[in-house]
Amino acid sequence: MSGAVNFKECGSVLVTGASRGLGLQIVESLASGGFSPGKIVATARNPERAQKLQELASKHSNIHVIALDVVSQESIEKAAAEVTQLLPEHGLNCLINNAGISVSADFNTVTAEKMIETFHTNTVAPLMVTKAFLPLLRQAASRGGAGGSRSMSIQRAAVINISSVLGSLELNWKAETFNKWYPYKASKCALNMVSRCMALDLEADGILCMAIHPGWVRTDMGGCEAPLSPEESISSTLSVIGGLTEKDHGSFLDYTGEVLPW
Amino acid sequence: MSGAVNFKECGSVLVTGASRGLGLQIVESLASGGFSPGKIVATARNPERAQKLQELASKHSNIHVIALDVVSQESIEKAAAEVTQLLPEHGLNCLINNAGISVSADFNTVTAEKMIETFHTNTVAPLMVTKAFLPLLRQAASRGGAGGSRSMSIQRAAVINISSVLGSLELNWKAETFNKWYPYKASKCALNMVSRCMALDLEADGILCMAIHPGWVRTDMGGCEAPLSPEESISSTLSVIGGLTEKDHGSFLDYTGEVLPW
Repeated sequence: MSGAVNFKECGSVLVTGASRGLGLQIVESLASGGFSPGKIVATARNPERAQKLQELASKHSNIHVIALDVVSQESIEKAAAEVTQLLPEHGLNCLINNAGISVSADFNTVTAEKMIETFHTNTVAPLMVTKAFLPLLRQAASRGGAGGSRSMSIQRAAVINISSVLGSLELNWKAETFNKWYPYKASKCALNMVSRCMALDLEADGILCMAIHPGWVRTDMGGCEAPLSPEESISSTLSVIGGLTEKDHGSFLDYTGEVLPW
Repeated sequence: MSGAVNFKECGSVLVTGASRGLGLQIVESLASGGFSPGKIVATARNPERAQKLQELASKHSNIHVIALDVVSQESIEKAAAEVTQLLPEHGLNCLINNAGISVSADFNTVTAEKMIETFHTNTVAPLMVTKAFLPLLRQAASRGGAGGSRSMSIQRAAVINISSVLGSLELNWKAETFNKWYPYKASKCALNMVSRCMALDLEADGILCMAIHPGWVRTDMGGCEAPLSPEESISSTLSVIGGLTEKDHGSFLDYTGEVLPW
């Protein structure tokens, strides 16, 4: 599959929220591609209940399933320690912050609790997870990418934040049909800011950081009316991620590689 | 003072976080202007400890000090009930969501708790406060502005969210010196999204909604190196707010009236 081709020289990938939806699809597409990464670390809040992920892992020896509840600092630190054992020499090349929730709430039904819960999972967790995995990302970045290249790429080290076009301020106008997603929109918009802040801080280490919108996809979250299948979305999204370079550092792209307005 | 002139035909204004800083300055500038609003509702978490605000209120009979802790739903509802008693006929013309905090935290020192605390006060509270005061804003909007005008303006009904240029995604690039403000930047960026979501929902009621950056000001929050005095910032900011029209609905402006990039 074309999406996986560019992961050829990417030694290791970690995907959060891999029990279902787009996270599971990312793991499946990476594992079944002709040029699969050496190690695919798939994290889930409750691995024992992630049946499809476990089945996938039983078929592909490069998938490693690890428990990670992204809103628990204790769980984040435990997972980082486990992954450090798993990747002792080469560090982590590509961290995909995919875990997210979508709490439906319009102006009338939104509560402080719904907003805060969504900020925690969708905005704060990617920041805290990235902080915890920074030593492994730095280790990979210091080794360089393919052939020791000092260019930015996922073959060297990268943080990919799964964002959404619903987090675009510019495009959030006269779009009343989607206005039942206050928590989701605000959290993804803030994730874009966190992504951009991290890009500034990770640049000196040569770690690429950006946000990507995977399209509107037929998952539990996206619903049955969405135009894209998980395979279509992730094939295209992984192809874009695989080809990222310096010029994409700090950017907000969609699954076709187009730049989205903030 | 020029800043207050356009508040001439604005019957009532409510300002959150009025015990000090820009909130206190807004109340002072509105009260001491030649064309002061009929009623200025100044809210503070602990009114009994807001000495300067109390002194100001003792000099101006149109200032009404009310307790409001913007992160407490109970406090928000109590304040809304009190203000309903205070403005029984005309409703509320202008709600200024000014209360905010700035928790300093860079990539290394930021924690989930600091992020969430800041989101709660700076992003979620303006939404919850606006929801609680919506009946009063609708009441004012249904009466129309000056001369019964159906045009959008603060003379009719408006929600003004005090945001920051630090919440601009576009401008947050190669600005390493400011990168110790992860919680503040993310919260103001998300506030801009909340502002834009609310603008979509409040439009049908004729209620103007926008976000404004008051400049970098010498307050406890801005520090002593900031270029603007509170008087300069608020004189200019109130002048912009006073002149808002339909075209500014859903916008992000600075204190000089310039459009800021998202």
